[in-house]
Amino acid sequence: MSSSRTESTFSAESYFATQSAPPNLEQDILNVRTFIQRHAQAGRKVVLVTSGGTTVPLELNVVRFLDNFSAGTRGATSAEYFLKAGYAVIFMHRQFSLQPFSRHYSHSTHPFLDFLEIESDAPEETGSASPTHISVKASERTQLLQVLTAYKAVQKAGTLHTLTFVTVNDYLWLLRAVSQELSVLGRHALYYLAAAVSDFFLPRQKLSEHKIQSGKGSLHIEMDQVPKILKPLVSEWTRGEGYIVSFKLETDTSLLIPKARAALSRYGHQAVIGNDLHTRKHQVVFVSPVQTHSAPPAAGDKQTFTESWLRMDPVLTPEKEIEEDIVNKLVNRHQTWANMPGI
Amino acid sequence: MSSSRTESTFSAESYFATQSAPPNLEQDILNVRTFIQRHAQAGRKVVLVTSGGTTVPLELNVVRFLDNFSAGTRGATSAEYFLKAGYAVIFMHRQFSLQPFSRHYSHSTHPFLDFLEIESDAPEETGSASPTHISVKASERTQLLQVLTAYKAVQKAGTLHTLTFVTVNDYLWLLRAVSQELSVLGRHALYYLAAAVSDFFLPRQKLSEHKIQSGKGSLHIEMDQVPKILKPLVSEWTRGEGYIVSFKLETDTSLLIPKARAALSRYGHQAVIGNDLHTRKHQVVFVSPVQTHSAPPAAGDKQTFTESWLRMDPVLTPEKEIEEDIVNKLVNRHQTWANMPGI
Repeated sequence: MSSSRTESTFSAESYFATQSAPPNLEQDILNVRTFIQRHAQAGRKVVLVTSGGTTVPLELNVVRFLDNFSAGTRGATSAEYFLKAGYAVIFMHRQFSLQPFSRHYSHSTHPFLDFLEIESDAPEETGSASPTHISVKASERTQLLQVLTAYKAVQKAGTLHTLTFVTVNDYLWLLRAVSQELSVLGRHALYYLAAAVSDFFLPRQKLSEHKIQSGKGSLHIEMDQVPKILKPLVSEWTRGEGYIVSFKLETDTSLLIPKARAALSRYGHQAVIGNDLHTRKHQVVFVSPVQTHSAPPAAGDKQTFTESWLRMDPVLTPEKEIEEDIVNKLVNRHQTWANMPGI
Repeated sequence: MSSSRTESTFSAESYFATQSAPPNLEQDILNVRTFIQRHAQAGRKVVLVTSGGTTVPLELNVVRFLDNFSAGTRGATSAEYFLKAGYAVIFMHRQFSLQPFSRHYSHSTHPFLDFLEIESDAPEETGSASPTHISVKASERTQLLQVLTAYKAVQKAGTLHTLTFVTVNDYLWLLRAVSQELSVLGRHALYYLAAAVSDFFLPRQKLSEHKIQSGKGSLHIEMDQVPKILKPLVSEWTRGEGYIVSFKLETDTSLLIPKARAALSRYGHQAVIGNDLHTRKHQVVFVSPVQTHSAPPAAGDKQTFTESWLRMDPVLTPEKEIEEDIVNKLVNRHQTWANMPGI
């Protein structure tokens, strides 16, 4: 999400009018609707968690694409804590990015094949081909049992619904559709927009059909700006009732708070969580407008903001995940928000 | 690899002279050297398998990057079959792309948490908190036991060495270093270059330090061509002795054979495996020069080529992996190559 003041070449309306919807959108919407209805009836709060980076294909038959750095750790970890807090979670993530529960067993950093063992049921001395079984190393059992128990409980309760996107176009169409569906929950819906969304894209009309051939000298790419969809998300799709949290990632910390404030003034949502690329696992800053009333401020309102930092000590508490504190803070804020009288 | 005839702005020499080496290169080289020495002494053939896509960062503090589409299926699958064929494998892959053995359990398509079960050792009726253990679903046991047995055997034999890259710069520095180390094996070294390598890059000198800010209108990127490193790889780094296989991926099938032939004439290596983005899992074409002598052809030689297609039927043999046939074919060709007299 950018705090740009210049108008992007595409408004949200013109974007959706000219760029085509992903093929499976209709089915995705129906599934989300069913999920939301079930949990609305159960009186459960629902959170939309977006996670991972979006791509911008350079070709229709895509070989090359622009991507945004994100493993999906923030989103996948937060989704687990939202489930723990009793929320139903719509986890809208980049295909192959980290997911709740399985994130603990990355094939690169903690491969599960390494903690499985093959045991023969026959005593060592009998060399006979005997039935074997697979067991979990003692050192891994406790954690795996915890993760597996939580995972099975969530499956049983049906509180996790997963959606995937790849391109920024998939993401924009899905975000609009899901937030429109979620708006039926009014103030009981929470939006946790942790995905790393491209600020730029190539309109379908500008894409080359086949793989760009090299050997023609250097490569020139010119991209258009992605429309600022937070504005219609806040004022139209969610009817100004959902509690909406966006993220701002910077590599220059001094930009965090000014850009967060600018985004809040511009879009009128409830919170921006600012994080620096290099310290994001240990500290984040919550930036919010001081709510004088429950309605989003009119354009031009002079606003005041509050900032509060969440920090953890990676040395003293290496096991601690900052997402636990982020989610707890938001659950409290969302409860307050849900109790506010409507406009 | 491109068949471009125009000169790229960077020669391999000028590239390595101006772009800085990845920080862990020295340690990576030492580990590879030890691995190669051990298997050279054991008289084992060694194959370098490169796998996955390379990135081109747009910023020094990377938030955005250009990427090449590749899950790493071809490389990870082929590595397994090379190990099965008795090769020692240097698996040089994109961080977080698919790896041999664990590739069977993608968190998205075949999550291992789904086939683990929690069993209580106490009879149902006693509700007492009793010790529990984790077991593998019956339906998954056979395959998992196969994969796990092969994985443990490879770990025990120490025949798989893994290296990771992220950027095209990491890749180029690693490829040069590893192929120089492998060259001690002469004709017993095989190079299987399945990675999807960017044809373009941004010289370090052109990178913006911090995240590119949006809102300044559209994004313009101009990239330089990556040097054609197959030429020095063939003639210098491997001294013309290694059996070198490159891949060509196209989305326009009619380009496959002409571009494969052009690459072989240009670089003088042994084989190009051509594949089309949409049919690559079911058919590939081997293109090779007709070897009149064992030396690479001098520039300007009029060459003749052979093409042979490998095809499988996804309906009749859905379980069959085309990489099994690709690797078997190459193992035979490499044996013939290894038996040829040196120049």
